[in-house]
Amino acid sequence: VLTRAETRLIYALQQRKARETKGLFLAEGVRVVEELLRSNIDLDFAAISTSLEDSERGVHLRRALNERCAVHELSDRDLNAQSATEQPQGVLVVARVPVHQLEDIQLGERSAVLVIDAVQDPGNLGTLIRTADAFAATCIAVLPGSVDPWNAKVVRASAGSTFHLPIVQTGGDSLFEWLHLHKHEVWGADLQGEDVSAIARPDRVALAVGNEGAGLRVETRARVDRTVSIGMAGRAESLNVAVAAGILMYLITR
Amino acid sequence: VLTRAETRLIYALQQRKARETKGLFLAEGVRVVEELLRSNIDLDFAAISTSLEDSERGVHLRRALNERCAVHELSDRDLNAQSATEQPQGVLVVARVPVHQLEDIQLGERSAVLVIDAVQDPGNLGTLIRTADAFAATCIAVLPGSVDPWNAKVVRASAGSTFHLPIVQTGGDSLFEWLHLHKHEVWGADLQGEDVSAIARPDRVALAVGNEGAGLRVETRARVDRTVSIGMAGRAESLNVAVAAGILMYLITR
Repeated sequence: VLTRAETRLIYALQQRKARETKGLFLAEGVRVVEELLRSNIDLDFAAISTSLEDSERGVHLRRALNERCAVHELSDRDLNAQSATEQPQGVLVVARVPVHQLEDIQLGERSAVLVIDAVQDPGNLGTLIRTADAFAATCIAVLPGSVDPWNAKVVRASAGSTFHLPIVQTGGDSLFEWLHLHKHEVWGADLQGEDVSAIARPDRVALAVGNEGAGLRVETRARVDRTVSIGMAGRAESLNVAVAAGILMYLITR
Repeated sequence: VLTRAETRLIYALQQRKARETKGLFLAEGVRVVEELLRSNIDLDFAAISTSLEDSERGVHLRRALNERCAVHELSDRDLNAQSATEQPQGVLVVARVPVHQLEDIQLGERSAVLVIDAVQDPGNLGTLIRTADAFAATCIAVLPGSVDPWNAKVVRASAGSTFHLPIVQTGGDSLFEWLHLHKHEVWGADLQGEDVSAIARPDRVALAVGNEGAGLRVETRARVDRTVSIGMAGRAESLNVAVAAGILMYLITR
């Protein structure tokens, strides 16, 4: 069972403010927690439901958790009541947010940085993190005004990439200074931008993608070296932000 | 106000079964309904909240609705109670599902058909429809086992493309026969497929994408001409299905 303080902590961590103050987040569900265990993120404690060990996969998971943190057992109903998402699927872990600073990012000869500029939808941000990880991005930089990357829905939609790819939460000033210092050409995704297929790809690129409705913020738009668009022959005016970023990251990194 | 029968109908249309039996669906929210009005889809009736006309956009919308169907006014609270999604945003329309048959699809010299094979998430299917529309796909073919394309969440995620791009709901037998008859090379998206960048693009292609967890179904996999994958240098094992389809549709149609 959980102590009252632990129960209160889990509940509090559904709010961004508490996650930021405490530097902790919630990971929920078998797949997500399996991915978490593949990282070296510090785990605080885990809550599992009694039915988790009905499957062999659950038995393995519990054993792996035991080696990393305290594991508390709850009834299925009590665990569901704790969950921030719809289905915790038998397991929930309180873990420490890994803090990455721009100064610590390792840069190779080639580099692709994905910049998140006020993306609001948790599913979109999770998918963006997953996509950046798939295309070996250097890191993801999350600017103010974006959904919290440690929101449980973002973590789930990222399919584990939140734990593997460095996520840097930073202001625009430090970010753009760092990008220029390290010779990144900064591209902003914009429907009125130059067709990406006509642009030579520099060795180091940062791609900024903006809000689902409004696009890039004015202050970000003012600081990109160029805006780029994806040629589309059809009727839909725009692409979903994660799809657009996927196409651009594919072209930038191949 | 709504009659009891209309209230019951709206409630029933939250279920796939009722949508299929009655051939009707729900469109909710200002943006979605504005897009609906740009199509020639038959509208049955509309329910709007009293506050819709607080904005000029709402006044315009109401006027446009008046010309197409009966419009009933409800309190904000009553309209919210009717909604299938979280926020109907002041307007909800019951409309007729446009039925498209393969035989009626117009084919040009080039053609790209997107085949949906057991995609489950409404947000993913909506994004797939939006993406196919952006890249001027010939149509979307939805195979059994997929989420209903007329689900309100799919309609909303498609950003209006559901109303513009022909959606054909069909069995695999008829579909693959039609695709071969009309000289489409059928590609299946699969992590173990050939790298798409090494494949010449035929004039007519059908791209099949599968379930979020399991990929293409066995029966679909057996019928594709080749499987294709997207080269990825990073750690994430796979891409979100809508992101993967976006990259492939971009490459196929450009």
